[in-house]
Amino acid sequence: MIDQTKLPYRFTYVSFTNYRQVATAIKTMVVRGAPAIGAAAAMGLALAANANRKKPREQLLRELEVAAGVIRSSRPTAWNLFWATDRVMQRAKETAGDGADVALAVVEEAQKIAEEDVAASHRIGESGAALIEDGDRILTHCNTGTLATVSYGTALAPIRTAVAQGKKIKVIATETRPRLQGAKLTTYELLHDGIPVTLIVDGAAGYVMKKGMVQRVIVGADRISAKYVANKVGTYLIALAAKANNVPFYVAAPSSTFDLRSENSDIEIEERDPQEITHIARQRIVPTGVPVYNPAFDITPLELVQGFITEKGVIAPDKLQGLGPTLRTENR
Amino acid sequence: MIDQTKLPYRFTYVSFTNYRQVATAIKTMVVRGAPAIGAAAAMGLALAANANRKKPREQLLRELEVAAGVIRSSRPTAWNLFWATDRVMQRAKETAGDGADVALAVVEEAQKIAEEDVAASHRIGESGAALIEDGDRILTHCNTGTLATVSYGTALAPIRTAVAQGKKIKVIATETRPRLQGAKLTTYELLHDGIPVTLIVDGAAGYVMKKGMVQRVIVGADRISAKYVANKVGTYLIALAAKANNVPFYVAAPSSTFDLRSENSDIEIEERDPQEITHIARQRIVPTGVPVYNPAFDITPLELVQGFITEKGVIAPDKLQGLGPTLRTENR
Repeated sequence: MIDQTKLPYRFTYVSFTNYRQVATAIKTMVVRGAPAIGAAAAMGLALAANANRKKPREQLLRELEVAAGVIRSSRPTAWNLFWATDRVMQRAKETAGDGADVALAVVEEAQKIAEEDVAASHRIGESGAALIEDGDRILTHCNTGTLATVSYGTALAPIRTAVAQGKKIKVIATETRPRLQGAKLTTYELLHDGIPVTLIVDGAAGYVMKKGMVQRVIVGADRISAKYVANKVGTYLIALAAKANNVPFYVAAPSSTFDLRSENSDIEIEERDPQEITHIARQRIVPTGVPVYNPAFDITPLELVQGFITEKGVIAPDKLQGLGPTLRTENR
Repeated sequence: MIDQTKLPYRFTYVSFTNYRQVATAIKTMVVRGAPAIGAAAAMGLALAANANRKKPREQLLRELEVAAGVIRSSRPTAWNLFWATDRVMQRAKETAGDGADVALAVVEEAQKIAEEDVAASHRIGESGAALIEDGDRILTHCNTGTLATVSYGTALAPIRTAVAQGKKIKVIATETRPRLQGAKLTTYELLHDGIPVTLIVDGAAGYVMKKGMVQRVIVGADRISAKYVANKVGTYLIALAAKANNVPFYVAAPSSTFDLRSENSDIEIEERDPQEITHIARQRIVPTGVPVYNPAFDITPLELVQGFITEKGVIAPDKLQGLGPTLRTENR
């Protein structure tokens, strides 16, 4: 995988030979972005399956369960992680034959997840591009491009497709504290594509909308429940400002991000290391002894969302509840 | 003045001998915070008056006009800068006698402005403390303490007074990008006072309110017109989140921040150097070639404000228009 912690300074690939390394890479954000995490989790299980392929079927399944447990505990919020792990584990259990057969099926399923994600990204691009008008200035938050998926992106996909269709689009990217994925990754991807991008601090998102500088907001998601969208911290404020200024607020995500099992509104929100806030570029910014609260995500109520841009088309939030878990499982 | 650009690493005073140095200190944020800027502007004129005290009256007034022009052009948004400059210049023009008499009056007026600001801060503390209940967690943005005023503060004043009254208060401080006044200065002041403070990124302000972690928001202001509050960028988002979560949103400011001359809603919003965003701790974060939009302030409509905490008591936003320019000039 691309080591995202080194960007935009160095573009390097890192290779892993076992699932524990993959789980650590997810935890430490070498790989980040909900769909990318999902694919990485599946690939972690593929590594575990491959390492144990000569073992008897039941022993292989037990080893896979251990690996799945470690991978599941790497990060708690992005639903794609659990979706991909569950999907691979179900395929493993359903596969007849000996360990080698199961291992082969696991590797195949992981590759399928990665391929499907690329296809989903491109379909999200097509669905979303239809909502974008020539000349639009689109505000986005965090990074939701090729780096956050297997390729192409979620919220950046409609922008890329619209540009490919010949529409003139300008992007306003928030820097996205504390990890600065907007400043470091989104600008990097858009510069590379030659799509005009202007960077703002997170706090300026309301002001640019109030000034009429934004026609649309598109963000990604880490988990979409029947009541809330969990996404990078700051998303909720952007959604409130979009509503207050009549700017349509869209969430772009593949089916694998939708967790419609129940109406349970409690999405576990990951709290990360205070050092993400107290230190920048290894330098301490904050006086020693100041406590920090560092939730990585926030939750946005569905009523602030104009539509979900998915690989199955654009879905209105009030249609979501009726879909039950289908949106999630249809792809299986 | 205290060199705020060195905090929280080093606490140092810098001394200036002429008004140009003072104007540069305002521009480069050695001194910042609307009331502190106002007092610094007045002191800059006092330096100019003192340097020219042996000149004839008319020549001194001309020199003062030049100095006032330079000082006025240092930063465009904080109203206190213009208020203080106007007040000192009017005193100079109204003073009879020779250059020495005028110079003495200017120095006296500058000292009066500084003294009145301290008194106003303490009265703001008393007015605001009455709104604060024991056990409140109060969210604030940017720095509005001793460093932002001559002493004691605007939004931090009610917190300090409430704590002095024996109320148990916890503060949630936003880091306040790009210049990180919350992370660097507010935490520094509150640690010093022994008032519990927790630091969050700006984007987390909505989430902490949605989670019920905040009972009140108190922020300062750089200018209050009959329609808008201009304050540190990000304030508008916090005000929207407060409204959405039924958290009272207060603005604490002395009379000198109120610009009620007209209903003109156009407050000039300063745009600052892109490097405030592209570089942190002298390290480049953003890929080269990315344009930046860096408004230092935003504007919050009065309907999002529960009340203005001033040295004249708490004023409801709908009462503001009736006050005309009185709020501003009563102190003269």
